[in-house]
Amino acid sequence: MHFAMIFSVIAVLVMVIGGFMFFPLGIALYEGESEQAAAFGLTIVLVIILGLVLHLFTRKKKGKQFSAKDGFLMVTTSWVIASAAGALPFYLSGSIPAFTDAYFETMSGFTTTGASILTEIQSLPRSILFWRSLTHWLGGMGFVVLTVAIMPLLGIGGVKLVSAESPGPTMDKITPKITHMAKLLWVIYTAMTVIETVLLMAGGMSLFDALTHTFGTLATGGFSPMNASVGHYDSAYFDIIITVFMVLAGLNFGLYYRAMTGNFVEIKRNTELKVYLGIFIAATILAAIPMVGNVYSNWGESLRFSSFQVASIITTTGYATADFDLWPSFSKFILFLLMFVGGCSGSTGGGIKVIRIVTLFKQSVTEMKHLTNPRGVFTTRINGIVVKKDFVYTITGFVLLYFMLLMVTTGVVASSPGNYNLITSFSTALATVGNIGPGFSLVGPTMNYSFFPEGVKWFLSFAMMAGRLEIYTVLILFTPYFWRRR
Amino acid sequence: MHFAMIFSVIAVLVMVIGGFMFFPLGIALYEGESEQAAAFGLTIVLVIILGLVLHLFTRKKKGKQFSAKDGFLMVTTSWVIASAAGALPFYLSGSIPAFTDAYFETMSGFTTTGASILTEIQSLPRSILFWRSLTHWLGGMGFVVLTVAIMPLLGIGGVKLVSAESPGPTMDKITPKITHMAKLLWVIYTAMTVIETVLLMAGGMSLFDALTHTFGTLATGGFSPMNASVGHYDSAYFDIIITVFMVLAGLNFGLYYRAMTGNFVEIKRNTELKVYLGIFIAATILAAIPMVGNVYSNWGESLRFSSFQVASIITTTGYATADFDLWPSFSKFILFLLMFVGGCSGSTGGGIKVIRIVTLFKQSVTEMKHLTNPRGVFTTRINGIVVKKDFVYTITGFVLLYFMLLMVTTGVVASSPGNYNLITSFSTALATVGNIGPGFSLVGPTMNYSFFPEGVKWFLSFAMMAGRLEIYTVLILFTPYFWRRR
Repeated sequence: MHFAMIFSVIAVLVMVIGGFMFFPLGIALYEGESEQAAAFGLTIVLVIILGLVLHLFTRKKKGKQFSAKDGFLMVTTSWVIASAAGALPFYLSGSIPAFTDAYFETMSGFTTTGASILTEIQSLPRSILFWRSLTHWLGGMGFVVLTVAIMPLLGIGGVKLVSAESPGPTMDKITPKITHMAKLLWVIYTAMTVIETVLLMAGGMSLFDALTHTFGTLATGGFSPMNASVGHYDSAYFDIIITVFMVLAGLNFGLYYRAMTGNFVEIKRNTELKVYLGIFIAATILAAIPMVGNVYSNWGESLRFSSFQVASIITTTGYATADFDLWPSFSKFILFLLMFVGGCSGSTGGGIKVIRIVTLFKQSVTEMKHLTNPRGVFTTRINGIVVKKDFVYTITGFVLLYFMLLMVTTGVVASSPGNYNLITSFSTALATVGNIGPGFSLVGPTMNYSFFPEGVKWFLSFAMMAGRLEIYTVLILFTPYFWRRR
Repeated sequence: MHFAMIFSVIAVLVMVIGGFMFFPLGIALYEGESEQAAAFGLTIVLVIILGLVLHLFTRKKKGKQFSAKDGFLMVTTSWVIASAAGALPFYLSGSIPAFTDAYFETMSGFTTTGASILTEIQSLPRSILFWRSLTHWLGGMGFVVLTVAIMPLLGIGGVKLVSAESPGPTMDKITPKITHMAKLLWVIYTAMTVIETVLLMAGGMSLFDALTHTFGTLATGGFSPMNASVGHYDSAYFDIIITVFMVLAGLNFGLYYRAMTGNFVEIKRNTELKVYLGIFIAATILAAIPMVGNVYSNWGESLRFSSFQVASIITTTGYATADFDLWPSFSKFILFLLMFVGGCSGSTGGGIKVIRIVTLFKQSVTEMKHLTNPRGVFTTRINGIVVKKDFVYTITGFVLLYFMLLMVTTGVVASSPGNYNLITSFSTALATVGNIGPGFSLVGPTMNYSFFPEGVKWFLSFAMMAGRLEIYTVLILFTPYFWRRR
């Protein structure tokens, strides 16, 4: 293990986080929020000192080749330490009095989950609300760069999707230099941020509201500075804009790069894109059917609310314009199904991801054909190219681990002193591991996570991180094999 | 498609079912249940006429080689027609007035599910209750013969577990002749039936009660002639006997054959057996922990009830000695998890089956090792033998189809006019597709399936059959590919 390398990366990371805290610091000073200003100031000083110390201690030992093991350890450690650093302003300012809560909220932000322990949001200082939303934006982009540009080089499991074992043209071929790739992704992400913010402001939102909601949208996060989430505005215009941008944020960011370079052939034959859009449209209509003339007066209204909620859940954003826990059973069931799906690979969305589900589905069909004609030769195609068996293998392992983590998380919630019912326990697991945010029953869209015991909050923080980092990356650190010397 | 062959098999099947109806006919005559006697008598005449007609029409065309397609069609058609024939006495006698209900109850019997539409059981005529339990016994054994002796020859999907793609010594090598194998399985099954019946009678049960409960146990069915199921007796002795026999019925029947021939080496290294028993013990203890001094006064009581319920759910029997829907969340969660597991391959149990779960789990661990050391060579072993990739492939396809069927079934229940909550809808799907019987909430252990609309009952009958016949076998008939001429 090259700990020096790992620490030098973390040194840069915490300094970047400290740098971004100048934005909320500015807001705190402008708004006259003195306690918050002091908390941000102190945190900035602390993380910069930490960063410099780590940098000094490690700069002489750099230059060695990274192994896959170093990659796993680095990625997980980054998320753990970033959340600790990001939690400090919440805690030091007293805005979130318990450190457990502050850590949960920050991890929820950086993992773009959007599960909140806050019971009263609107009355919080604006600098705090801004930082809370900014953790989404940073976490979302950090994850895209990680999955599209960095992880494939490390050969990290879940992300083999877009790497060596990918059936299609591999992402890391797009551009040979990581730094170039990462820069381009930031440009695309920033451009989308500007466009959505402008569109929201054009509809009458303040700059603050527009920015924070844009952060939550593009990161598929879900934190809103409003108690009633996007439902606060009750505006069809805002609903549609945010729906469109949630859907866009759930797309593979590699496709935007291709669109920019005029490579439309590959976009056109992208299986994941077609299936993702197909699911979005089908689910929107199916969820709307039982609500027409019932929950909502007509088709237009029903489609407006169902398209928003379907986009919010499939992309794992978690914004709400309605208390979907009160929807008809069938509409709730559609959302429940979508909680298992998630966005596209290489997007800011969480969940199992569309590519994995479509591959396994196609493989099952192939398997059925094979059964009726044992001597026939059948293949599964993704993006027009035959899928290799190892790809299906890796996906199977991932999905099983995903379900195991869901089950363990459900067990932890169910076994806690609160004796929470099965639907609360299971949907809490789904909403955290899948980085969605809201679930059903006690963690429904109008509820929050504040009531859970401390131990459960820590475990859920872990679950959010494991879900975000494609599970393997985190769980592997808990195997004896990982720590064994070769 | 060799329809003549298929019909000739069905001719034999319906005549066998008609033959077994002489038992309840005898009981009806003895008990003076005239309407029931007439119904059984009429049904026997009808099925024998049907059998003879089919036999006459098809006997000249026999002798051709069966294809896999013929096998699929034959197996599914057998279950559909057997349930129709078996439902006649319920319907004709007026004991179950609606044919939909009679068909549901019979399909639930033959598939060894044990889900009932009856609201008042004890007051039914004894001949009817006997036939109801006998459908379990016939269905359970029919399934074991099917999976252990017949299906491997047809190369049918789900059952490749014990066939060509099995990593261990294959079942069809045990004895070259199907008829010999099938006879031996019947001998083992009948011997176990006699032993359990005698043991239950030794504890004070009447012959009728002992026989019907034994049928439900060995078939992992779950129909009881008592409203309160096995809980009616409130006897630790009966609980323990039935627990032991449920666990035995969840074992691969091929292992009994091996034990009879003194082949203990293969039993000792049987991975599925070890994992199955390990899960049973671990789940019993885990489910008991939150109940000690709470639901039950001490460890002994807690373990008695938890071991019974764990055995009942993991083997997919569905007997109840307690209303587990009122248990602490964590204990319910353990049962919920077990609903996904099921018994061993080649047993009378339903569900995903232990061998599939253990293989996928081991494969995930292998995959993780591979990630930390990309150049290392790692293998997954079952029964001490390296698993072939195709085996994992087939299992993956099966598990995905299983979950798809669960989701579709949940959707059908949730979309029905009753607007049933998610936990009712999902556990109904689990309880029928997994052939368990009781679920949670509205289909909990003290409830029944009578309240569902007619359409839902028909769909659930289909779901029970698809679950029982390893899904592929049934779903494949709905693919255009199946009906295409080569």
